Amino acid sequence: MQKILLIGAGRSTNSFIEYIKSKSEANDWFLTIADQDFELAQRKASGHPRMEAVSFDVRDEINRVNAISKADIVVSMLPAHMHIPVATDCIALGKHMLTASYISDEMKALDERAKEAGVILINEIGVDPGIDHLSAMKVLDEIREAGGEMLLFESFTGGLVAPEHDNNPWNYKFTWNPRNVVLAGSGGAVKFIQEGKYKYIPYHQLFRRTELISIDGFGKFEGYANRDSLKYREVYGLKEIPTIYRGTFRRPGFCRAWDVFVKLGMTDDSYQLELEPGMTYRDFINLFLAYNPNDSVELKLMHYLNIPQDSELMEKLTWLGIFEDTPIELEKASPAQVLQKILEAKWTLGPEEKDMIVMFHKFGYRLNGENRMIESSMVTLGKNQNETAMARTVGLPLAIATSHILNGNISTPGVQIPISKEIYMPMLAELAEYGISFKEKEVPYKGY
Amino acid sequence: MQKILLIGAGRSTNSFIEYIKSKSEANDWFLTIADQDFELAQRKASGHPRMEAVSFDVRDEINRVNAISKADIVVSMLPAHMHIPVATDCIALGKHMLTASYISDEMKALDERAKEAGVILINEIGVDPGIDHLSAMKVLDEIREAGGEMLLFESFTGGLVAPEHDNNPWNYKFTWNPRNVVLAGSGGAVKFIQEGKYKYIPYHQLFRRTELISIDGFGKFEGYANRDSLKYREVYGLKEIPTIYRGTFRRPGFCRAWDVFVKLGMTDDSYQLELEPGMTYRDFINLFLAYNPNDSVELKLMHYLNIPQDSELMEKLTWLGIFEDTPIELEKASPAQVLQKILEAKWTLGPEEKDMIVMFHKFGYRLNGENRMIESSMVTLGKNQNETAMARTVGLPLAIATSHILNGNISTPGVQIPISKEIYMPMLAELAEYGISFKEKEVPYKGY
Repeated sequence: MQKILLIGAGRSTNSFIEYIKSKSEANDWFLTIADQDFELAQRKASGHPRMEAVSFDVRDEINRVNAISKADIVVSMLPAHMHIPVATDCIALGKHMLTASYISDEMKALDERAKEAGVILINEIGVDPGIDHLSAMKVLDEIREAGGEMLLFESFTGGLVAPEHDNNPWNYKFTWNPRNVVLAGSGGAVKFIQEGKYKYIPYHQLFRRTELISIDGFGKFEGYANRDSLKYREVYGLKEIPTIYRGTFRRPGFCRAWDVFVKLGMTDDSYQLELEPGMTYRDFINLFLAYNPNDSVELKLMHYLNIPQDSELMEKLTWLGIFEDTPIELEKASPAQVLQKILEAKWTLGPEEKDMIVMFHKFGYRLNGENRMIESSMVTLGKNQNETAMARTVGLPLAIATSHILNGNISTPGVQIPISKEIYMPMLAELAEYGISFKEKEVPYKGY
Repeated sequence: MQKILLIGAGRSTNSFIEYIKSKSEANDWFLTIADQDFELAQRKASGHPRMEAVSFDVRDEINRVNAISKADIVVSMLPAHMHIPVATDCIALGKHMLTASYISDEMKALDERAKEAGVILINEIGVDPGIDHLSAMKVLDEIREAGGEMLLFESFTGGLVAPEHDNNPWNYKFTWNPRNVVLAGSGGAVKFIQEGKYKYIPYHQLFRRTELISIDGFGKFEGYANRDSLKYREVYGLKEIPTIYRGTFRRPGFCRAWDVFVKLGMTDDSYQLELEPGMTYRDFINLFLAYNPNDSVELKLMHYLNIPQDSELMEKLTWLGIFEDTPIELEKASPAQVLQKILEAKWTLGPEEKDMIVMFHKFGYRLNGENRMIESSMVTLGKNQNETAMARTVGLPLAIATSHILNGNISTPGVQIPISKEIYMPMLAELAEYGISFKEKEVPYKGY
């Protein structure tokens, strides 16, 4: 019997657990679900004979080592900064390990020890990062194997609401951690390269520098840039590529409206507001507008940011209720925390509503003296409230990689991300069985 | 003989040294000038019989304690974070101490020990902070003593170029640390209160929310807000005041043009650019503009930020040479460091040119059922390259306070800033002898 230990049983583990459960009998697997919240772990284990729930504090070394030592493979769904002690134990105990988090420098530093121990330690094997690597590397390798020279690579991912439930003026609802959505892009200047020219965008201009992309059958999306596209030159073996750009998808018009919050300073999480009892949403907006006893909050906002009164943008803002006298009811909060509360009241996915993950890559290359371009796209919808598109696209790659490590298809040890053919070929094939598949098409080359 | 120890002999100590030297014979003072750079200290001591130069590393406890123990009073012109070991020694050895830096929490925590030791430890006794406290507290106390209730307090200071040498389109030259000018305002959101309404301005809007002020005989200035005006409610005993705002002066038009650099992201000091050999000023600007092979850098900039071609703003930018193919000649640099280099080539004060310090306060108050307003202003010019207005307005308050501590006029022990009548009365009187005096006038009350 092969034993799998899942540490952390949050919402995005549902599809992982479902996959392991459904194949546990045939493969003789046993899944231990560990969480600090024992009841949550128990609910997820659901009394299944091949699953058990345990509870321990991952910072407690004795319990952690004890749990890991009983497993053949460990999947850590802990917050990113908590992976390292688990990884260190896995290497010491000779256990394979998977995470969906960005690989940290500390994690990279464990590579040699992992190789010596024969331990496979795969990071970035969720959706973004994860499925983006698998699907991009497949096409990149095909182009390079045919002798093509890469000219351009762009890649976008978006977590959005499914078209059938896309019924608000923002064409957006929260499908993952709202706090991360509110703070998106605020970590520092954006860096990319376009036609050989380095480009930098400060946070406060990020949502004004977007790109429109159409995907057959799903309409238009707009992409804003992710923080550091430059590092992917090394990761994907594209050191000399003149254009590389990674971004995030929203529906058209979202970014221009979101930019209002950025421009006002409402996404700032670095200080606490002086919130007075009884302060309302309208008062909150007014904190960021110049004092004027004669003009309305609406007029001051429109004048400050040059927004026409009859624009869709004003409709989006008004629909959110930000001009209403709704009490904030927070005692201490940063601007970002107040904004999050306002948005959560309007952007929460209903119990019957489905989400959608959209991924898109553009590959420009030169082959036999000719410039060519391939577009690759994937759209997948949530099944239900438990198996959302987000949970499926994070959990299924983790589960499939777990299965391929256990059955020996993936066998190269070391700290890595899923960019080798050994990993992406079997994984893309199996993801397609779950409706997560990419459509590739040749299009005329278009540079900048 | 009374012994004064000056630690740190940088440019803004010239007027301090000049003052102490000129009065050393009459008062039987002896000044020890300490600096890590012995030659600099020697040059400043200038072979005068009542001055000596020494050199030691202030981090070396034995040498530091040795030097402090020989003095009666210590003036620390070290960088702000290095005051604490000096202050701790001064308290232990029973020596008074002065600094021109903002009082830190660590410094405040020494108050009780200073009082027990009978040590006077005055911080914020330069120009801003320093002369602003003296001049504001005088009027505030007068209003309160007359029974007035404060409605509004605004205060601005600017380090600018003297009118006779104000000959560039920015009406600005560096008169202190250029790095601090480039990074001004970037530390976090601005906070103030206006007519009872809290207001917050994010850095990227700071230079678009300015206020115009006229000063008799010197024309118009524009003020942008300093970071945290709210804390001055407590410092000045204005807890219930509905309007408090502190800011920095430039000449009109400066802020709108500076805003271009902020909007482009050129004042960012948080990351290193990928600078390639041979990159020019023009390439630098282009890093922050969208790629377009057909449009000029000028056109892209004007379009991006909606700047008319025939505007004074374009004239300011062009005059700086930012559109020229001048090589940057920096290997590693943040955007702010490149910008500083470009500006230093144009904004440096010539050897014969003079600077100017401008300070302005506005006091709104209610007295006998009537709203009234007082404006208080001070403008002072540099004497020469050594005794600039900046060096004089920083060094003279330090020197005058030193003299009043040594002669017993200032005698209250403890860690403090200069807001008591005991301090501001004799100091303002003596500063006036050096041409640093405030003109106060009643004006009609104007709220917001």
